Amino acid sequence: MHILVTNDDGVQAPGLLALAQAMRQIGQVTVVAPDRNWSASGHVKTLERPIRVTETLLADGTPAYMSDGAPSDCVALPLLGYVDKVDLVVSGVNPFSNIGHDVTYSGTVTAAMEAVIASVPGIAFSLASQDKPANTLTNYGPAGEIAKRVVQNVLGRGGLPEGVVLNVNIPYLSVEDMKGFAITRQGLRVYRDALDRRVDPRGRPYYWIGGEAPTGVNEEGTDVGALAAGYVSITPLQLDLTHYKAMDELKKRDWAL
Amino acid sequence: MHILVTNDDGVQAPGLLALAQAMRQIGQVTVVAPDRNWSASGHVKTLERPIRVTETLLADGTPAYMSDGAPSDCVALPLLGYVDKVDLVVSGVNPFSNIGHDVTYSGTVTAAMEAVIASVPGIAFSLASQDKPANTLTNYGPAGEIAKRVVQNVLGRGGLPEGVVLNVNIPYLSVEDMKGFAITRQGLRVYRDALDRRVDPRGRPYYWIGGEAPTGVNEEGTDVGALAAGYVSITPLQLDLTHYKAMDELKKRDWAL
Repeated sequence: MHILVTNDDGVQAPGLLALAQAMRQIGQVTVVAPDRNWSASGHVKTLERPIRVTETLLADGTPAYMSDGAPSDCVALPLLGYVDKVDLVVSGVNPFSNIGHDVTYSGTVTAAMEAVIASVPGIAFSLASQDKPANTLTNYGPAGEIAKRVVQNVLGRGGLPEGVVLNVNIPYLSVEDMKGFAITRQGLRVYRDALDRRVDPRGRPYYWIGGEAPTGVNEEGTDVGALAAGYVSITPLQLDLTHYKAMDELKKRDWAL
Repeated sequence: MHILVTNDDGVQAPGLLALAQAMRQIGQVTVVAPDRNWSASGHVKTLERPIRVTETLLADGTPAYMSDGAPSDCVALPLLGYVDKVDLVVSGVNPFSNIGHDVTYSGTVTAAMEAVIASVPGIAFSLASQDKPANTLTNYGPAGEIAKRVVQNVLGRGGLPEGVVLNVNIPYLSVEDMKGFAITRQGLRVYRDALDRRVDPRGRPYYWIGGEAPTGVNEEGTDVGALAAGYVSITPLQLDLTHYKAMDELKKRDWAL
């Protein structure tokens, strides 16, 4: 079992170390992660420039590869042959939840998508430490333990259904305080972004996407609802984005050229 | 009717000009587009740095805004209040098709997604000029005409179903040679990427994501199949990525903590 570990926060993030250490209890681990933070950078394929990969060490002294590509590039390169055959790709642990509409923005989730597009199982792990961001290895201890259990469960039951990306969101609690696992659907995010116009020292305007942290519609059965209730949320995602109901509706219209 | 026009190829791309000119026949147009090419850069929300917006002119002398943000930022800023209320966001015309798994990588498509997340209708337009890339305004003439007809059709029938992103792919033909419109589902892309290892003048390796252009599984009813048969492919996409069948399957497993 050869497990590729990546993330979107950069190779030195404690969440990556926690995930790598957890995966080492299950199989052989190779870490290929970005050299910087790519949060909210979505699904990238770097085609216009070459990618560098250098060797580095994680904080526990174990070797890792660091790339100047995006998280999805850190998956593409190994799967294209940069390392030996990969059986599973795990991404994270992201310090913030990736729920609702976050999934297409999320480098953590799109790295796992990249694996599934290449027919390798992919699982994204995120920790809901929104209010007090997890920033030490200890903070990620329970998340690492949960990641290990999820992977063991998935592997022990014959893997994942074809074409499924598993999006796992973990409450920021001790394992004992978690309520259990919940298989969920993608819920609704409520973004509260606001335009923040400022003027630079030379009198020219610039703009921040500001506002408040997103909330979510706390509905039972969703990732948002499960997390809020203290459950580990496990959402199977697909890469077929077709809106089949709308397709049927649009077909009824007159579309003469 | 206020239409926001953006793209992922940069504000001076001829495909954007063709789309802006077509939309001006329907309503008031504001162009906000990136100052550079963002192809294959996916869904981005620029939160770590501020965004600059400057005024520029398109090749036909009409005004446009140019931003150093990503395509989805070029949608977010206007919808957050940078310009007056927007009724419709159109993105493109991309010189290459965005079909199958391309949709999550595509700046053209994710710009339209950004609109729909903000509850504004979003339509992405791409031209399948893979073999001989369209690079003049004339090359985009038929695509502009088709974009106009699609938008008129959508507006004339009371808009789009809630939460639907329309992904329109146009064959690289004259309007007369097109077979008509086809409402399709997302097909399967076949990526033929390969790792291309090279050595720089200082003896250090670097890597290109190389290989050949992607193909697709030419299946009836899909975007891939419709395009190949000479139809304008119209695929309704959704932002709920839940794999409901897999959800039911995973629920049957034992997920004790």
